[in-house]
Amino acid sequence: MTTEGQSQIPVGSSGAASGETTRRTQDINPWSVQGAEGENGEVAAIDYEAICQKWKTQVIDQKLLERFEKVTGHKPHRWLRRGLFFSHRDFDKILDRYERGEPFFLYTGRGPSTGSLHLGHTIPMEFAKWLQDVFDVPLVFMLTDDEKALFKSSLTFEETLAYAMENAKDIIALGFDVKKTFIYSDLKYLSNHFLMNAWEFSKLVTFNQVRGAFGFNESSNVGQLFFPSVQCVAAFATSYPEIWSDTPLPNRTKDIAKIPCLIPMGIDQDPYFRLVRENAHRMRYPSPKPALIHSKFLTALQGAGGKMSSSNPNSAIFMTDTPNQIKNKINRYAFSGGQVNIEEHRRLGGNPDVDVAYTYLTYFEDDDAKLAKLYDDYRSGALLTGELKKLAIQALQEYVKGFQERRKLVTDEVLEQYMRPRKLEWKGNQNPVAKVTMNVKEKGDDKAKGVAVTNGAPAETTGEGKAGPENSKR
Amino acid sequence: MTTEGQSQIPVGSSGAASGETTRRTQDINPWSVQGAEGENGEVAAIDYEAICQKWKTQVIDQKLLERFEKVTGHKPHRWLRRGLFFSHRDFDKILDRYERGEPFFLYTGRGPSTGSLHLGHTIPMEFAKWLQDVFDVPLVFMLTDDEKALFKSSLTFEETLAYAMENAKDIIALGFDVKKTFIYSDLKYLSNHFLMNAWEFSKLVTFNQVRGAFGFNESSNVGQLFFPSVQCVAAFATSYPEIWSDTPLPNRTKDIAKIPCLIPMGIDQDPYFRLVRENAHRMRYPSPKPALIHSKFLTALQGAGGKMSSSNPNSAIFMTDTPNQIKNKINRYAFSGGQVNIEEHRRLGGNPDVDVAYTYLTYFEDDDAKLAKLYDDYRSGALLTGELKKLAIQALQEYVKGFQERRKLVTDEVLEQYMRPRKLEWKGNQNPVAKVTMNVKEKGDDKAKGVAVTNGAPAETTGEGKAGPENSKR
Repeated sequence: MTTEGQSQIPVGSSGAASGETTRRTQDINPWSVQGAEGENGEVAAIDYEAICQKWKTQVIDQKLLERFEKVTGHKPHRWLRRGLFFSHRDFDKILDRYERGEPFFLYTGRGPSTGSLHLGHTIPMEFAKWLQDVFDVPLVFMLTDDEKALFKSSLTFEETLAYAMENAKDIIALGFDVKKTFIYSDLKYLSNHFLMNAWEFSKLVTFNQVRGAFGFNESSNVGQLFFPSVQCVAAFATSYPEIWSDTPLPNRTKDIAKIPCLIPMGIDQDPYFRLVRENAHRMRYPSPKPALIHSKFLTALQGAGGKMSSSNPNSAIFMTDTPNQIKNKINRYAFSGGQVNIEEHRRLGGNPDVDVAYTYLTYFEDDDAKLAKLYDDYRSGALLTGELKKLAIQALQEYVKGFQERRKLVTDEVLEQYMRPRKLEWKGNQNPVAKVTMNVKEKGDDKAKGVAVTNGAPAETTGEGKAGPENSKR
Repeated sequence: MTTEGQSQIPVGSSGAASGETTRRTQDINPWSVQGAEGENGEVAAIDYEAICQKWKTQVIDQKLLERFEKVTGHKPHRWLRRGLFFSHRDFDKILDRYERGEPFFLYTGRGPSTGSLHLGHTIPMEFAKWLQDVFDVPLVFMLTDDEKALFKSSLTFEETLAYAMENAKDIIALGFDVKKTFIYSDLKYLSNHFLMNAWEFSKLVTFNQVRGAFGFNESSNVGQLFFPSVQCVAAFATSYPEIWSDTPLPNRTKDIAKIPCLIPMGIDQDPYFRLVRENAHRMRYPSPKPALIHSKFLTALQGAGGKMSSSNPNSAIFMTDTPNQIKNKINRYAFSGGQVNIEEHRRLGGNPDVDVAYTYLTYFEDDDAKLAKLYDDYRSGALLTGELKKLAIQALQEYVKGFQERRKLVTDEVLEQYMRPRKLEWKGNQNPVAKVTMNVKEKGDDKAKGVAVTNGAPAETTGEGKAGPENSKR
């Protein structure tokens, strides 16, 4: 699938799906991702266009990327330009908000099913960090240790909690700004307004609805049935009373509830957020529908049709891999689009669209022209598979090495700083087209400390009438 | 129903059920209590014997009460003697534990659906307090504000939380000892080990199981489906890491999990605790089956066949009622077992078994001989309905007045003392037949502070091997 209007350089893994007659249709849900089965039993590449159509999401097109660049002053990330993040819901509305200097926050997450991350995990996280850097907004990072133990019979809650802590250290090593990032473990953080939101949301959703949305059945455990409410309300600003002011508001408020969020995520998580988008307005303090940016799955070493998986170590580059392990994995396992021997390759050329080494270079090589030349040279046969793999190995070794160096610096003390519920500090758009102040002080409570969120940055006020003339807009 | 071997003075409301042909059968569940429908459409008294048989609970008989008196040195409470608390599961095992000086705790609860309590609420609470005084053990008091908003569409979570706080003040006014009582609101307290227990428990229970146990269906909301897991794990000692030691244990432990609990409760709550009794051993750190003491429902002013209900103000004596309101309610609404006029009453005598004023006197008059005389005099016609009602009015006015005086003293500061998660202090049985020490220090964590629970009273120790020779029993 190449998306109309996007860069001419497609992400390699996405070219193989068109025109195939399939047997088993593809199956995408939050717990399993499987491509369709081809005529000869082989697994086909994921058909992302079909998902967009089925789930009625919007394609991220050139027009949207141009608007992004105009509003933010930033060139779209290569993962946007190349369609790794390919689909959205209401991302255009977030750009409108940013343009007007109105507050919003980012929310992303990770299911801690193992203690170490691979590329398939870190790349979407890097993208979330990039969005945070560009927009200068708060980011909440949910570690669903509760979910992982609920859905995997072999894992205890103590184990997934320990994985969450390890994963958090990895996440920190990606370079998130501590001032505007709150990382939390569900098992540790869930309580108070977050849990109240989850209960209230769960009251709006029946067994029949989660059965339909997530494929549950009568034998599903009741924790599984309830959990979607937890993941859904993580998109509500009221779930995080601490991040908006020095003294957390004692009660949920209508004004905090109005702050929307933007969620970069794998497309497989969309069912959760369809559910929250359908029900957000039904909450006592209604929240806007969260905006979503969907990513494709990171191509496994074996090629398109599955995603990198921790349970298959040879499918992924892990962030703990040594330079040698990376080299060996790419050389041994990375699916090649090259020909059977050098002579044939020189004569016929390779197919970068299905070549995993090339695909990985699309993730890391920022220079579009350089990448286009690699594409053309591989096509023509001028560039050999070994040479292409070598470039991919270098890029991956460099990326993983940088990560590992930063990871060493993440002590328990650093971890505590990120995971402590606290007021976040950010600036948002400092040159908005229109200045808007939103007062989030609790109504009817004269003694409560008010928090005026201006251009995304909170400025504390005390009592009524001190939030400036905009206060009257409440 | 009079229970074999119990006192000769039956609780008045329970005499009317035998021998009736019924149409609609009685329906008892945690959210609704309805007697069977009689031949002429009237509501029959609840048939408690039938519940015992259906749910396979044990009747509290004379032998058990004798053992209670022998082990504790206390005369059984009049509510035990008169069969208001009429049924149990494993209460005998709790007596065995008490006899040996082994620790256990009490757990009871209240669903805060309104801000004020009536007799039907306070009497079981008074009984819990009496058990706590007799056994000298910790008591946890759960306010299910989450449940009440989940099951009542008209109530918001903020409202039930506010009711919980009001109810807590009423509960405190009943005289619970602050040193050994922890009162909590689910919406405020749920987090950490409690929530981890709930998640783990919910993983053991399917939709099919809660459908069967609680009468849920596919249209039930997912919060309702999950909530039983919350109420169930309130029976596990590990849910309250704070109450066992000054420094709460960082992790759940096997040894804390072994501390059993005793739950005095309305018989309608039994489905929750059947579920926990069926699954307690399947937890990662197994807990014993909780022991239960079941009460009948407090007779409504209108007589047997329903229970006092906040939603029907004329069915109940509220703890906020004035002396005049109490007088008027009893005189106007209390169902009478007397005859149509004085002459007939003198001639035929009244029926104390169905007389609500008499029933209320069975709740408050501790003197068995005095009560027996009232019973006989009413039967013979010597005692008139007006005279009986006057005695009931006096008893109720006195009880409610005492409550209201203590209630005035319960400030927000007092409330905070009871609701703060903290180490509780208790003594248990100070003259056990055999001394048993149970070390609850976390295994494999040399740095953790150990807590040796001896005779129910915790004595702190540090490190391995300092808990005395009994330590080897671990």
